[in-house]
Amino acid sequence: MASANQQLSSKHLLGIKDLSTEDIRLIFHTATNFKEVINRPIKKVPSLRDITIANLFFEDSTRTRVSFELAEKRLSADTINFSASSSSVKKGETLLDTVNNILSMKVDMVVMRHPAPGACQFLAQHIDANIINAGDGTHEHPTQALLDAFSMQEQLGDLEGKNVAIFGDILHSRVALSNIFCLQKLGAKVRVCGPPTLMPKFIHKLGVGVSYNVRETLQWCDVANILRIQLERQNIKYFPTLREYAQYFGINRQLLDSLDKKIVIMHPGPINRGVEITSDVADSEHSIILQQVENGVAVRMAVLFLLAAKG
Amino acid sequence: MASANQQLSSKHLLGIKDLSTEDIRLIFHTATNFKEVINRPIKKVPSLRDITIANLFFEDSTRTRVSFELAEKRLSADTINFSASSSSVKKGETLLDTVNNILSMKVDMVVMRHPAPGACQFLAQHIDANIINAGDGTHEHPTQALLDAFSMQEQLGDLEGKNVAIFGDILHSRVALSNIFCLQKLGAKVRVCGPPTLMPKFIHKLGVGVSYNVRETLQWCDVANILRIQLERQNIKYFPTLREYAQYFGINRQLLDSLDKKIVIMHPGPINRGVEITSDVADSEHSIILQQVENGVAVRMAVLFLLAAKG
Amino acid sequence: MASANQQLSSKHLLGIKDLSTEDIRLIFHTATNFKEVINRPIKKVPSLRDITIANLFFEDSTRTRVSFELAEKRLSADTINFSASSSSVKKGETLLDTVNNILSMKVDMVVMRHPAPGACQFLAQHIDANIINAGDGTHEHPTQALLDAFSMQEQLGDLEGKNVAIFGDILHSRVALSNIFCLQKLGAKVRVCGPPTLMPKFIHKLGVGVSYNVRETLQWCDVANILRIQLERQNIKYFPTLREYAQYFGINRQLLDSLDKKIVIMHPGPINRGVEITSDVADSEHSIILQQVENGVAVRMAVLFLLAAKG
Repeated sequence: MASANQQLSSKHLLGIKDLSTEDIRLIFHTATNFKEVINRPIKKVPSLRDITIANLFFEDSTRTRVSFELAEKRLSADTINFSASSSSVKKGETLLDTVNNILSMKVDMVVMRHPAPGACQFLAQHIDANIINAGDGTHEHPTQALLDAFSMQEQLGDLEGKNVAIFGDILHSRVALSNIFCLQKLGAKVRVCGPPTLMPKFIHKLGVGVSYNVRETLQWCDVANILRIQLERQNIKYFPTLREYAQYFGINRQLLDSLDKKIVIMHPGPINRGVEITSDVADSEHSIILQQVENGVAVRMAVLFLLAAKG
Repeated sequence: MASANQQLSSKHLLGIKDLSTEDIRLIFHTATNFKEVINRPIKKVPSLRDITIANLFFEDSTRTRVSFELAEKRLSADTINFSASSSSVKKGETLLDTVNNILSMKVDMVVMRHPAPGACQFLAQHIDANIINAGDGTHEHPTQALLDAFSMQEQLGDLEGKNVAIFGDILHSRVALSNIFCLQKLGAKVRVCGPPTLMPKFIHKLGVGVSYNVRETLQWCDVANILRIQLERQNIKYFPTLREYAQYFGINRQLLDSLDKKIVIMHPGPINRGVEITSDVADSEHSIILQQVENGVAVRMAVLFLLAAKG
Repeated sequence: MASANQQLSSKHLLGIKDLSTEDIRLIFHTATNFKEVINRPIKKVPSLRDITIANLFFEDSTRTRVSFELAEKRLSADTINFSASSSSVKKGETLLDTVNNILSMKVDMVVMRHPAPGACQFLAQHIDANIINAGDGTHEHPTQALLDAFSMQEQLGDLEGKNVAIFGDILHSRVALSNIFCLQKLGAKVRVCGPPTLMPKFIHKLGVGVSYNVRETLQWCDVANILRIQLERQNIKYFPTLREYAQYFGINRQLLDSLDKKIVIMHPGPINRGVEITSDVADSEHSIILQQVENGVAVRMAVLFLLAAKG
């Protein structure tokens, strides 16, 4: 795929923070090739035929798990799935013991989602296999950020100088954080927009613009990446309520039509139709939400392929 | 397998209602070939080598899922399993968004079980992939009806004019409904038999005989398809109780031996031994219950193969 | 692998009790060959390419299931996973019906974990496929005992006359029982050590030494196999408590260092660090806990391979 002497700078993908801009461009270049592969009638390549990958999901995540699993199968890897609900973790085993056990069975790579921020970093310090972070608590979700930026670049070309707005619950979102790091490394200007109560205290240290005004932010941006309001966090009883959020921060067609410009609409899913985004926006011609999903498989194939080469 | 110019009339299998008699015969012809395949030492064919199939089970169903999964593997397809318990459905995503996401990952066919009647029809109107209904609420369960009719035909030859009785809870059964449609298209005469409280109000519009007398119905039929009394519905507190059902509608050896004829005994499983059927009937020489299971894999291979050709 | 005329004496692996010493040595010889295979860059052999194996886990067990699944994949078998939580068992189906259904789908081998002691024996009397016991209640866990003895032999050579101590909850442990049978067949001397309340009444009939003194037993043994204290059984409110167990029966570095000899340290996992074993023992240079896990895959490959040959 990529020319033989190009390699990632690390053997793990723990977070966007650790990637160089060259790393990101190498991943995108490789993903472009794999996107062609998965759009051919024969969607498989033998690249990782002798590699075994364990998918360790200590938190449920259908879409990320299925996307990784398909990426692994398209690369002809062997896969082992492992979910928290049936795991020995419930029997009091430590994370390190669980993972060391799996590695002793001659597993080459570990894709892990874990509720604790930093769980992947911890593992990478103690074990030998390649670790890919598939989301660690509120910390990072690097493959999501990579597929988001890759999808933006498909629409807008080089992201240098482009304006990207991220809407929603920035406080609880690993997607927001990884997106910010990734977009900044690619030279984009980033602004976050949401209710003050869903904005982290450290936001001003991240070098991004902050706005509480949806219309103004839309008027500014080339791309709107609209994050999911996490219904399952509603027991936190935060302000605003879902209804208030939809009214003051939800993005609808009327609002977009009132602008004098075209904006690329993105969402990492799952969508709450009628909360952070209305159906006429999610399904509009400017929405690239399903392209994001497609690109997710190609980007994850690229990450797995490049890390295996660092083996 | 089947001759090259033979094709199903639809690219989906949503219900028996949509199939022509020719469609059903084509499926049976193809299934006969696949049954030979799975009885060879090498049970695999490369037919669907470049096809990816998602099994979306929004309701638990071990036997149907395993049967489909084996059919897919025998055809060399790639499979992705997806169950409701770990799905983003719980996060408030719509069915259409869930399925569109999976399709964006370049999945070719969707096998779906869903608690809502009509869920598969709805999907087929909105998406591009082949949809196979693996049971939608109380509506249809077409592959079960096909494997049942295929198994009857193996025993009795052409079903034209044959007498088939369906015993049990007709009211809550998608298996009964699909069986009735399928048998009628093949020219069989169908009679249903069970307690009046488990008989749907629309039963007289279906062109079937209705009886509340087990002995009389057994005396009439060539095949008895005995449906499962669903223990898990017992919270509905319907009449009769399980004990009453067993006494008045359960089929036992003594009853069968008192008839002056041989009847083929069928059951879609899982069996409640001692409720709708006694062990000496379920395990008797006239029972083809395990042949039904074997034929299930062959019939599902035929359906997947023929739909992929319509791709 | 093994020479062509060598075969196991049974087509099932139900328990160590049924194996001859020659059977065990044949499994070890074959496992040695497979251990080389899984340490090569290409970890797969085509031996079971046309075999389908069902993994039926009626009890959760990540590590045993993953180990079997990897063993099956390294042998190129097709696998079907089936767990109790999603099974038709909940719908009232009998074990025999469940398994007969799966076998009718042309499955060749069944790996089963079940909470009822003797469940595998029962199955073997009624069905035709090869049965491999992956743990049946408090009865046996033969592949664990085989991998334990195989791992000991790697450290100590022939086990004839070697002293092996088993520490912990002997009463509730299928691992202890299978270990005792296996070690005795290989000529080792076995002593069990634990609190009297966790010692089965029939222990004196097994031909093993019994001790309640950890230091004395350590001084005697060449290998210490330290069993897991099952946190999940703490609702039984047995004496001692975890804290008492750790204090009086837990094995720590200070204790080991105070002996005038080197002991091989083993544990079947999952480890409760600080209960039956401290971290400085589990992670010490004498611990072969992770080698046990690695050997588990090789030993299970050997068992599957040899049983398939008896098919």
